[in-house]
Amino acid sequence: MKPKAIVLLSGGLDSSTCLAVARERGFETHALSFDYGQRHNYELKAARRIAESLGAAEHRIFKLDLAQWGGSALTDPGLQVPRAEDSRGIPITYVPARNTVFLALAGAWGEAIGARTIFIGVNDVDYSGYPDCRPGFVGAFAEALRQGTRAVDEGWMWEIAAPLQNLSKAEIIRLGTKLGVDYGLTVTCYCADEEGRACGKCASCALRREGFQAAGVPDPTRYL
Amino acid sequence: MKPKAIVLLSGGLDSSTCLAVARERGFETHALSFDYGQRHNYELKAARRIAESLGAAEHRIFKLDLAQWGGSALTDPGLQVPRAEDSRGIPITYVPARNTVFLALAGAWGEAIGARTIFIGVNDVDYSGYPDCRPGFVGAFAEALRQGTRAVDEGWMWEIAAPLQNLSKAEIIRLGTKLGVDYGLTVTCYCADEEGRACGKCASCALRREGFQAAGVPDPTRYL
Repeated sequence: MKPKAIVLLSGGLDSSTCLAVARERGFETHALSFDYGQRHNYELKAARRIAESLGAAEHRIFKLDLAQWGGSALTDPGLQVPRAEDSRGIPITYVPARNTVFLALAGAWGEAIGARTIFIGVNDVDYSGYPDCRPGFVGAFAEALRQGTRAVDEGWMWEIAAPLQNLSKAEIIRLGTKLGVDYGLTVTCYCADEEGRACGKCASCALRREGFQAAGVPDPTRYL
Repeated sequence: MKPKAIVLLSGGLDSSTCLAVARERGFETHALSFDYGQRHNYELKAARRIAESLGAAEHRIFKLDLAQWGGSALTDPGLQVPRAEDSRGIPITYVPARNTVFLALAGAWGEAIGARTIFIGVNDVDYSGYPDCRPGFVGAFAEALRQGTRAVDEGWMWEIAAPLQNLSKAEIIRLGTKLGVDYGLTVTCYCADEEGRACGKCASCALRREGFQAAGVPDPTRYL
């Protein structure tokens, strides 16, 4: 029997690559997406297709409202998503403690089904502005989860796998291409339309486009 | 201006005492309850009244479905809540990673409104069966939250205050009574009816009843 892993799957390029890596490493994958009030809601449809195309054993879309207290351009209609992110400080698109919440729920589901590994597509080469994408956070969270679950009584450790942590966007794209990820299914743009077509102008679109160029892989993104 | 604190408020005896302690310590209190699929749903009505009676600046009931993946007698209608809890091992009423999830959401709200303190009514004297009620967990989580939020960039620490950690049930009741908690509003029983009347027979009821006896405080609990 394969060991189980929870894979956080946003429907974007990084988390889809993560799902492919988890499968490649021999895990039965349980993909977890969040309907949290994000304005780029199309990514949930994308996540559904990606989970299916990469053979996830199960895919859950967990509903919770992180928009209710504001604090981010990604959930607050009153704030504008900037075209190019300011490179200093924490970006306005940061959603307070989002990955802490997502990993906590991944841990809850994992504990319920007997998974001891969680995959998360965080990355700090191309984009290190979010505090909850850094290695220090991932390690500290794994320890908190151990202390707060059966792991501490049963004497095992949670593995929070962040296989993309040190890869450039181009390296991620090359890795995923090798593992059979259909990047045409993935959505990165925060402003994608109902059909999943990207704006081509925001900071996320720019990073993605440059990644395909640097990887020497044709860009399958559908632009508006 | 008073500093803000998030207070996790279940509607039970311990968390209500915690809310009173937070007020006593000079915080503007923001109470957070969860509608997570628990069978003892009456406690949310109780939480509403307690937050009001203890002068919370705000009270949120956050909705999320922790029952969807089972794993606990508190959320799974197919499992029976035991009358007396087995004293060894993790009880069947443990909800996987519940406090990890609750603290993560408290951190998210706290970050959005500028609170740096979270109160949680965990206690390990009378009832140490849940891993996510122990001091090791609380400390590890505070560090994970620091790493995963603005705190790490801005150079401050989250305080996760667990003022009841080392108190007996009787000591908690004496403390809350002194601070003006109306325990008649609180509900502890996992099987309380729609009117909030306690069964008087489950492990939680027994602990609570013994607490009032040991404290020498009249028990205001309404029993079935």
